Amino acid sequence: MRFDIITIFPEMFAGVFSGGVVKRALDRDVVRIAVHDLRDFTTDKHRQVDDRPFGGLEGMVLKPEPIFRAVEAVREAGGKVYLLSPQGRTLDAGLARELSAESQVVLICGRYEGVDERVVEHLADGEISIGDYVLSGGELAAAVVVDAAARFVPGVVGKEGSVRNDSFCGGILDYPQYTRPREFRGLKVPSVLFSGDHKRIERWRRKKALEKTARQRPDLAGPGALSPEDRDLLAETKNERKDE
Amino acid sequence: MRFDIITIFPEMFAGVFSGGVVKRALDRDVVRIAVHDLRDFTTDKHRQVDDRPFGGLEGMVLKPEPIFRAVEAVREAGGKVYLLSPQGRTLDAGLARELSAESQVVLICGRYEGVDERVVEHLADGEISIGDYVLSGGELAAAVVVDAAARFVPGVVGKEGSVRNDSFCGGILDYPQYTRPREFRGLKVPSVLFSGDHKRIERWRRKKALEKTARQRPDLAGPGALSPEDRDLLAETKNERKDE
Repeated sequence: MRFDIITIFPEMFAGVFSGGVVKRALDRDVVRIAVHDLRDFTTDKHRQVDDRPFGGLEGMVLKPEPIFRAVEAVREAGGKVYLLSPQGRTLDAGLARELSAESQVVLICGRYEGVDERVVEHLADGEISIGDYVLSGGELAAAVVVDAAARFVPGVVGKEGSVRNDSFCGGILDYPQYTRPREFRGLKVPSVLFSGDHKRIERWRRKKALEKTARQRPDLAGPGALSPEDRDLLAETKNERKDE
Repeated sequence: MRFDIITIFPEMFAGVFSGGVVKRALDRDVVRIAVHDLRDFTTDKHRQVDDRPFGGLEGMVLKPEPIFRAVEAVREAGGKVYLLSPQGRTLDAGLARELSAESQVVLICGRYEGVDERVVEHLADGEISIGDYVLSGGELAAAVVVDAAARFVPGVVGKEGSVRNDSFCGGILDYPQYTRPREFRGLKVPSVLFSGDHKRIERWRRKKALEKTARQRPDLAGPGALSPEDRDLLAETKNERKDE
């Protein structure tokens, strides 16, 4: 799978893919990433990429021509093109997985003050937002999209199970993890984890995950969102609290 | 305002803050960012930061001691400490603004496979997630938090109005922007923007913003979320469509 990133700040990507899963995917050539400087697709001597908005407002807007030229230069047959923008479809695990099935994803990093709307209407296949907040540009958002999507490309994450066990794929948050030391400044690892009883451990983990989800993200743990077994497990917790 | 980032991949931040608003804030010394290598806070000769999880599972979990030591070394009086994790409170414009009011924010980049839960329960003031997707680590998430929060620090974004006009602060998406040329490959900029009639332009922009919000993000444009004026404006659009 191939990602092409079009940006006015290519230097922002200098170290971004040098760690973790994406680095391993690049090293193994399972994923390719190319970063393109939008200014290389201008035709004037000032290499101008933005201009003042029509209709009289502050700020600058990215011009359509260099973006059209850049996309046309890098897009391969069947490639998909997305503009990063706060107006886009919100990235979630489902969209990340969809993107991972494409042969090529071209990501246009908008300056968030604005991109000429003709890019949205006549060039891009869609707009993607990584969340309900504003960034100074699409660069970090593009890097997030690459990381989130690359994890779903077969062969990128060591054990495929790791992706499936990740938060959100199962609809609820992850359970708590503990490692050595067993006791640190008087803080102990829960004893169930040393019981050797894998069923009990699994049940405890599921319960902790459900508790955390109900506490931190009630939107993910509504009655309709949980299986009958999970609802029972969560009810158990609530009863235990009453008993205390 | 000061951000301290604790990470096992400091090199991922090499270029991240070299563009846009955050760079300007750093240049003007309105915001300070320090990146700390978690391994510098280990005490063993292998500089080990992670270990296998208790309870028998794949993957590695970040150990508690180096993280406690790192936070204790960098946290100033009154500083807030957050772990980046998919289990956290979801970042939005409101949380970004809250963070911008702190004197110091310490961001711990978790590897997303896991961080010892004692960090969450006994060290951090909270967990922050940038969205419902999994990343290989908290590094990109930390950079996103810095960018989103820094915008709200007074003096960072040139005109304070730019932040207020941004998407999400007003509850709906942004209106479309256009710049030169007026016509590009037969695609014309809407003529209203050349009318010179600022009231008409403002009304058109609000209407377009409402239309886009209703189409892309119905969750933000429900009847309860809009003012009576906005509801009327949006209804107008629907009637126009019927007439066409």
